[in-house]
Amino acid sequence: MKIDILTLFPDMCRSVFMESITGRAVKAGLIEINAVNIRDYSADKRGRVDDTPYGGGPGMIIKCQPVFDCFEAVCGKNGSRPHLIYMSPKGKTLNQEKVKELSKLDSIAILCGHYEGIDQRVIDEIVDEEISIGDFVVTGGEIPALLLTDAVARMIPGVLSSDESFENESFFDGLLEYPQYTKPFSWNNIEVPEILVSGDHGKIDKWKKEKAVEITKKRRPDLFEKKFGGGGE
Amino acid sequence: MKIDILTLFPDMCRSVFMESITGRAVKAGLIEINAVNIRDYSADKRGRVDDTPYGGGPGMIIKCQPVFDCFEAVCGKNGSRPHLIYMSPKGKTLNQEKVKELSKLDSIAILCGHYEGIDQRVIDEIVDEEISIGDFVVTGGEIPALLLTDAVARMIPGVLSSDESFENESFFDGLLEYPQYTKPFSWNNIEVPEILVSGDHGKIDKWKKEKAVEITKKRRPDLFEKKFGGGGE
Repeated sequence: MKIDILTLFPDMCRSVFMESITGRAVKAGLIEINAVNIRDYSADKRGRVDDTPYGGGPGMIIKCQPVFDCFEAVCGKNGSRPHLIYMSPKGKTLNQEKVKELSKLDSIAILCGHYEGIDQRVIDEIVDEEISIGDFVVTGGEIPALLLTDAVARMIPGVLSSDESFENESFFDGLLEYPQYTKPFSWNNIEVPEILVSGDHGKIDKWKKEKAVEITKKRRPDLFEKKFGGGGE
Repeated sequence: MKIDILTLFPDMCRSVFMESITGRAVKAGLIEINAVNIRDYSADKRGRVDDTPYGGGPGMIIKCQPVFDCFEAVCGKNGSRPHLIYMSPKGKTLNQEKVKELSKLDSIAILCGHYEGIDQRVIDEIVDEEISIGDFVVTGGEIPALLLTDAVARMIPGVLSSDESFENESFFDGLLEYPQYTKPFSWNNIEVPEILVSGDHGKIDKWKKEKAVEITKKRRPDLFEKKFGGGGE
C-alpha cells in the first residue's frame, strides 16, 4: 500500500514513520509512505501558499493552486489517482470500520490543512472524503494524518505479527479490553487476581469476558448498548 | 505549562514538538515538553520492560516497575506530582471541554502504552485519568499523546496569535466552520461566492452563520441537535 501525505510540515511526519511498528512496515517494504511538501508546488515566486480570506476575518487560507498542483504531481508519480482524504473537523468521525475500509485500498493520499483552512474550491474539486478525528481542535492536520496512517498501516497483512494482531479481535468484538497483568505476581503488595494463575482456561476465559463486559458497561454504556441492545446481555 | 510524555519511543515524540505551532511555543518558553523513556527506568539488567500476560494470551504487557519508577522520577524532577493521563481505548473520549480543562493545569504527564497494554496494578495505582481519542485502534499511545499535547498547547495563552485563535471561537460556538476562500477570485473557472466580495459585512456575517448552520445540520446532526435542541433553530 502507498500513502502520500500532502503537508506544509513534511519533517514532522517523516520522523514518525521511522519509528515503531509503522517504521518496521516501511523498512520491510509492506507500505510506502511519503510526505510531500505542498510548498514545493507553489507557483508564487516566494513560495507563498496562503492568503487572506475573502469576506474578511482573521487567519490565512491555503490557496487552491499549490494544493491542486501538489495532488496532480502525486497522481502523476503514482501513475494513478489515489483516494484523497482531507483531515478536517467537518469530516465524518474516524472509526475502526472506516480504517478497515481504507486499508483495502492500493493507494491513499491525505491532505493536511493548517492555518484557518484550505480554499473550499480545491476541496470540492479534488477531495474524495473528509475525515475528522474527534470533537477537539488541533493546530493542523499533520498529527491526525499520522494517526490515520498508523491505524490503516497496522491493518495491512504482514504489518503486525500474529501476536500483536490479537488486540484487533478484542476491539472488533465491540468491547473494551479486560485488565491485563504480568510478572511479578505480587507488586507493591498487590497481587494478580487468583483466577489468572489457576490454570483453568475455561474459567479464565469466562473471567476475561465478564471483566470486558463489566468495564464496557461502566465506561462506555454506548458501546455496551450497541453490542447487547436494550435488554442487557 | 509542563508536559511530560512517558513512552518507549521518545524520538517519535521529540521531532514533532520541534515543528509547527507547538515547536514555536516550546522555543518561546511558553511550554516545556519532555519525552521520558520508560526503558531508562527498568530495573532489569537487559532493560526489559515487558513480559507475558498472566492467564495466557498473545502479546506482551508492560510491567509495573519501570512505569512506576519512571513516573516517580518525573515527580521528583518536577518537585510536584503532575496530573497523570493514560492514553487508552478504555478512557473517556477526548473533547474540547476536556482539552480546555487540562490546559489550566500547571503540569500534566501522559503515559503511552504499547504492545498489549500496561499491567493494571500500576494503572490503578498512579493514573489519574484515562483518555481515548476515538473508537479505532493504533499501534501505541504516542500519536494520541502528541495529539493531546498539541490540542492542550494551543489553548495556553500566548501560544496562538490572536489571528490563529479565531478558529477556537467557531468551534466553541458548537458549529462546524463555514467554507473559506482566498485569492484568486476565479480559480479553475470557479468563482468565490459573490456575497464575500460585496463589502456588506452584515450580509457576509449572516451568510457565514447560515453556511455554518447548514453544514453542521447536514454533516453532524448530533452537534446541530446539541446546539439548537429538538425544535430546529
